[in-house]
Amino acid sequence: MRSGMRMAFAGLALLLAAGAAAADRDDAGQRAFAAVDPFIGTGGEGHTFPGATRPFGMVQLSPDTRIQTRKDGYGWAAGYRHSDSTIVGFSHTHFSGTGHSDLGDVLLMPTVGELKLERGDPDKPGSGYTSRFSHATETAEPGYYAVTLTDGGIRAELTAGARVGVHRYAFPQSQPAHIVLDLRTSMYDYPGKVQWSRIRVRPDGTVTGFRETRGWAPGRQLYFALRFSQPMTGHALHDTEQNVPYKGFPPPGEKDPAQRAQIEGRQLVAGFDFGSALRGPLVAKLAISPVSEDGAIANLDAEMPGFDFDRVRADAKAEWAKALGVAEIDAPEPQRKAFFTALYHALQAPSLFMDSDGRYRGPDNAVHQAKGWTNYSTFSLWDTYRALHPLLTIVQPERRTSDIVNSLLASRRESPYGVLPVWAFHGLETWCMIGYHAVPVIADAYMKGIRDFDANEALDAMVASASYGPYDGIAQYMQLGYVPIDEEGEAASKTLEYAFDDWTIHRMAQAMGRKDVADAFGQRAGNWQHAFDPDTGFMRARKRDGSFRTPFDPDASGYGTDYTEGNAWQYSWYVPQDVAGLAAAHGGTDKLLARLDAVFDAKVDPKVFEHMEDITGLIGWYAHGNEPSHHVAYLYAYAGQPWRTQARLKQVMDTQYKPTPDGLAGNDDLGQMSAWYVFTALGFYPVAPGSNQYILGRPFVRKATLNLPNGKRFSVIADGLDDAHGYVGSVTLDGKPLNRVYITHQELMAGGELRFAMQAQPNREWPGAKAKSPYSMSNPEE
Amino acid sequence: MRSGMRMAFAGLALLLAAGAAAADRDDAGQRAFAAVDPFIGTGGEGHTFPGATRPFGMVQLSPDTRIQTRKDGYGWAAGYRHSDSTIVGFSHTHFSGTGHSDLGDVLLMPTVGELKLERGDPDKPGSGYTSRFSHATETAEPGYYAVTLTDGGIRAELTAGARVGVHRYAFPQSQPAHIVLDLRTSMYDYPGKVQWSRIRVRPDGTVTGFRETRGWAPGRQLYFALRFSQPMTGHALHDTEQNVPYKGFPPPGEKDPAQRAQIEGRQLVAGFDFGSALRGPLVAKLAISPVSEDGAIANLDAEMPGFDFDRVRADAKAEWAKALGVAEIDAPEPQRKAFFTALYHALQAPSLFMDSDGRYRGPDNAVHQAKGWTNYSTFSLWDTYRALHPLLTIVQPERRTSDIVNSLLASRRESPYGVLPVWAFHGLETWCMIGYHAVPVIADAYMKGIRDFDANEALDAMVASASYGPYDGIAQYMQLGYVPIDEEGEAASKTLEYAFDDWTIHRMAQAMGRKDVADAFGQRAGNWQHAFDPDTGFMRARKRDGSFRTPFDPDASGYGTDYTEGNAWQYSWYVPQDVAGLAAAHGGTDKLLARLDAVFDAKVDPKVFEHMEDITGLIGWYAHGNEPSHHVAYLYAYAGQPWRTQARLKQVMDTQYKPTPDGLAGNDDLGQMSAWYVFTALGFYPVAPGSNQYILGRPFVRKATLNLPNGKRFSVIADGLDDAHGYVGSVTLDGKPLNRVYITHQELMAGGELRFAMQAQPNREWPGAKAKSPYSMSNPEE
Repeated sequence: MRSGMRMAFAGLALLLAAGAAAADRDDAGQRAFAAVDPFIGTGGEGHTFPGATRPFGMVQLSPDTRIQTRKDGYGWAAGYRHSDSTIVGFSHTHFSGTGHSDLGDVLLMPTVGELKLERGDPDKPGSGYTSRFSHATETAEPGYYAVTLTDGGIRAELTAGARVGVHRYAFPQSQPAHIVLDLRTSMYDYPGKVQWSRIRVRPDGTVTGFRETRGWAPGRQLYFALRFSQPMTGHALHDTEQNVPYKGFPPPGEKDPAQRAQIEGRQLVAGFDFGSALRGPLVAKLAISPVSEDGAIANLDAEMPGFDFDRVRADAKAEWAKALGVAEIDAPEPQRKAFFTALYHALQAPSLFMDSDGRYRGPDNAVHQAKGWTNYSTFSLWDTYRALHPLLTIVQPERRTSDIVNSLLASRRESPYGVLPVWAFHGLETWCMIGYHAVPVIADAYMKGIRDFDANEALDAMVASASYGPYDGIAQYMQLGYVPIDEEGEAASKTLEYAFDDWTIHRMAQAMGRKDVADAFGQRAGNWQHAFDPDTGFMRARKRDGSFRTPFDPDASGYGTDYTEGNAWQYSWYVPQDVAGLAAAHGGTDKLLARLDAVFDAKVDPKVFEHMEDITGLIGWYAHGNEPSHHVAYLYAYAGQPWRTQARLKQVMDTQYKPTPDGLAGNDDLGQMSAWYVFTALGFYPVAPGSNQYILGRPFVRKATLNLPNGKRFSVIADGLDDAHGYVGSVTLDGKPLNRVYITHQELMAGGELRFAMQAQPNREWPGAKAKSPYSMSNPEE
Repeated sequence: MRSGMRMAFAGLALLLAAGAAAADRDDAGQRAFAAVDPFIGTGGEGHTFPGATRPFGMVQLSPDTRIQTRKDGYGWAAGYRHSDSTIVGFSHTHFSGTGHSDLGDVLLMPTVGELKLERGDPDKPGSGYTSRFSHATETAEPGYYAVTLTDGGIRAELTAGARVGVHRYAFPQSQPAHIVLDLRTSMYDYPGKVQWSRIRVRPDGTVTGFRETRGWAPGRQLYFALRFSQPMTGHALHDTEQNVPYKGFPPPGEKDPAQRAQIEGRQLVAGFDFGSALRGPLVAKLAISPVSEDGAIANLDAEMPGFDFDRVRADAKAEWAKALGVAEIDAPEPQRKAFFTALYHALQAPSLFMDSDGRYRGPDNAVHQAKGWTNYSTFSLWDTYRALHPLLTIVQPERRTSDIVNSLLASRRESPYGVLPVWAFHGLETWCMIGYHAVPVIADAYMKGIRDFDANEALDAMVASASYGPYDGIAQYMQLGYVPIDEEGEAASKTLEYAFDDWTIHRMAQAMGRKDVADAFGQRAGNWQHAFDPDTGFMRARKRDGSFRTPFDPDASGYGTDYTEGNAWQYSWYVPQDVAGLAAAHGGTDKLLARLDAVFDAKVDPKVFEHMEDITGLIGWYAHGNEPSHHVAYLYAYAGQPWRTQARLKQVMDTQYKPTPDGLAGNDDLGQMSAWYVFTALGFYPVAPGSNQYILGRPFVRKATLNLPNGKRFSVIADGLDDAHGYVGSVTLDGKPLNRVYITHQELMAGGELRFAMQAQPNREWPGAKAKSPYSMSNPEE
């Protein structure tokens, strides 16, 4: 055999092996896909939606069970509540798990018989186009949703491309079929929400339009283009707003709305007629665009030239299976369902926000062009910097995180304020929540070696955001080292979170060799100490004169207090950059440990949080339904008692997640709650993004394998795990004893095997007193 | 001397001759410039504005003396009324001479002392930022305006580039200086007019923003960028609207508006502070853009890098002098003033509507790119197709008209209805007035050999516009040959104007060899006959059953009648394409002549038109203040009695134009009233655009020379003209007797001399019974 041939054979063997691995992963993907239940979180206050979307897709096409008005909006933030029994229609944009409401753009609803253009009263069947439905007729899987609309006897199916929502409606043959397009509805529907809108029926039957809404994001513009697989027999465009002054001259055909080709106004609804002789189900495809109607048409053409619903559904399934196949787990089916649904929910945001030609809108509401990168928006950063973004660095190709960073940097370039996003969606800033948590997202990426962006621009943007005086007391924070409560609300929370974000700037600047920045922000990272009150052992807010604000009630929470969506019991442990320093401030680890126990073991009347929508999922004062608690159970491991972390995690996992519609303890917050679940099930968690360390908890699955995007495989094995054996006896990494409570990102991404020996009783000797501690600023050796 | 040198000398001589001609024209331009009085038309109901603009400029920067509300809007359509004694501020967009109100975008006002952000009551000095002023302090010339604001003692000067308004404010030294930027004001200011707006103070001190307004044009977006020559010492951004629900989270610095960098809302006003230590006058330059804030910044940078006010004023003067220098006239100064001011007013619309990079918004409200042509908007076509567009084919380079046609065609491509503009501004369709009069504008250009556009596309667009059934009874017109009054209002006027427009399609199709179109529209051009009632001798509206509507009152006008802004006395002569046919229908020219006399000589109580804002300037029933009468005096010449035309024109010129603020008999209508004056003063008028003929009246100047853009010169000489010698005895063209009552466009553009021998008495023998008649469809030989 000549060497060339040998090499060819060797190559073939490698190829076959790669093929086998790909096939394995394909299988894993199919199994993972089958395990997802999109209804998890659609009940209770999870605020997820069951409809069709692609991973990180721009369209989230999902049924809205009720169009909520202001007073009762919280429960319907995702449009769908599992306890409802009516469907208003199918709209194309939804948040997955927010506490605030917006989106719900461009609602379509199929109807038969007499055309009704008002949605009606959900409690009075037939009073409008709203229809009853039964959960028994529902099917949902990633990228697909179906339901039978009882009142019209219409089978409705939804699937989605990245920018296109696809509807397939099977109408009963006997009656005239219609589709209602309602531009008046929103998640939160109130007078004045729609500032302006347009519907235009083009000569070729394409329907385009836009609307601009006020609300959570001001002046938000969204454009659409809609095509039907079979020709309309008629259309009518209506403006249902009365008493609008000075509308100008009527357009042609004003006297006969059915002839009108275009309508503009604030309260627009259209009815499209298809007669009673449709040839099979009607497919409607609707693309959205942040840029223009032409952009929407181009998106439609680029993604879906024809009307092959099944093809789009199959493509969606393949894309989801590929994304979900990153993990294989050995666990009972309910747990697999919870795990893969959590992973599914963690792969939805940030979401794509640009046209197929790379154009998008920035925070200046102007159109920009992405060249060589993909623009994302929907940044719920106060939530997602904690675990969701770190999870994406593992389960998604590096490109995804680089593009997220590039999107953050572009947003900062286009920002009227010159700062990174705080809480942004559809390109626009909402200023929701606190902190400058785009900063740790970027630093975490950089520290992990994900660097396909301009690092100097990034560091400049981080420094600018951390130095923007008018924002939430930063001017005072820079002057005093803390945010003074007599000048800025929720000052304790702000001081703590700023100090953490500052530490991530310090880390990145240090790694880049930009010493002046590293020194300045290393200094600022210690500012948490200004919030610590040694007398009470709580983090508190100081006034400008340096004194703590009195009276002080550690149980109190609310918008006038020292804290953001929490109280002293919840916020006092937020020093992830320096847990050793926090312990020292308390007078040693024992004191800190006792305080942590006091958090979990307190007897708390849940009524104390009735006025706070977001504080849910209580275990003592620990509130798993909201983010400030998410790292707290892992702090025991820092303090030398990992067995206590293991026990607390079991408490949380047993009580806060169920594979049922009401299975989430609080808002999923664009995947943060779900990312916590995925990490914790695997046995580790990123307490301090930017440290490159994952703190070990304990696995909740017998075996998990991560098919990492870099081609490596990382397995977690929990020998002897069962409900009675929930403590870690010992750990090996690639067969060698692991005598520390963390693994590094580099170890994980190199592939290998993390093996836990599980046992019934705590092992108070592992990892041992001489074990290397996790990173703390006071103890920075890693 | 070698031949090369000879040639060089010959070239030099040519160059010197050309230079001398250019110098002559420069002088002519300077003299013409000096004659213009921008105050003409700012009183009465002329509705012109005195502020600064470039020829066909996008910015019209002018003082607004009062912000009118809906009820009293008519008189303030251009923002300024000469009878007012207060100035609210200086806004950047104005119509010249409309009956409806809109624009008035982005108002700036300099103030001193305590900052006031409300405009206040004009009758209560000091109640707001509005200031008193005196006409004695005003100066206005093309491209420049100045006034002293009495209340603050501020000298305000304005000049303009094509897309930039430039302000120079000299503040008194003693008090703090401010500039108010008010986005709440409009021509017509009413609740809900501003749909959304934004003001953003960028880190470099540039102020950008936009507003979207409803009104005459729906959903109109206008962006701006503003820079000051000296740094602000502070700023405050305010939203004065109350009770806006769900505004989202406050942006940074909400507690201290002075720190806020951006504000969005529906009622925004900003105050910019400059302290009391300004170094000389403050220059503010503000660019507008239909596209985006970035577009506005780019326009600002492209047109005006620095702050040299005097340079921009000098450039504006040079541009105006060049444009106005197209004409030289020998006439008394008041008449020169009237003539050149009319020419000035005729060079303002259509106006530039695209950014420096060629982007603009179309009637779909989307952004488009012009490549290789310049986009114009503000098409008051019902007015301007008559004489303004024909005038531009003479006094402006062909490029201007080709670009206007290209703009019309682009608008049709982008139209939701697939039709040419009706009455459009800032790219958007208002559907104001009647007809499809973009059609004669295009046909007139084509017939004159101005063809730098796609003629086949143009003809298709013309046919499509003339065949768009839903518009104003076109479907019925195509079926019946007339618009039926029982199905569509103002049916007689519509039938007549459609028939004329159809004739221009016929003409152009014939010239292009598109016989089927030519034949079909030749047929339609005769549809005026369906409106003619031989019993009464009036044009009337028929019902679908073919009968004329009764009762019939030829004096009646108004929105329920057979006519548009007129009555039977005014509309019954609108057959410019077939005056011979009209005479025949009346039973001969004598009958027609008697009817025309009845129009002019009627005793009419002006009160009959009190309910109609636009019908003004009465001579009998003849209403020079509105367009349907504009061709009527010239009809005598068609009917063989040119001396009667000459006499009627003197009546009109003597009574309807004065070189004073109230010197226009009606709205200038974007230059149509002024174009009538220019033509009539020169001695001819385009009764039937598309015929290539100008009907001779009589000159009102002793001598006029047109320095045609093609380099030729065309002179009109009126030998013996004075007030007592107003009749034409004979005419020569280039020395040869001209025995017809028209000249052709080709004769005019070839240059030459048209010489009139004026006399005291009518010459009833000229041009004689054997004279060639002007074009009529019934008599088409030319």
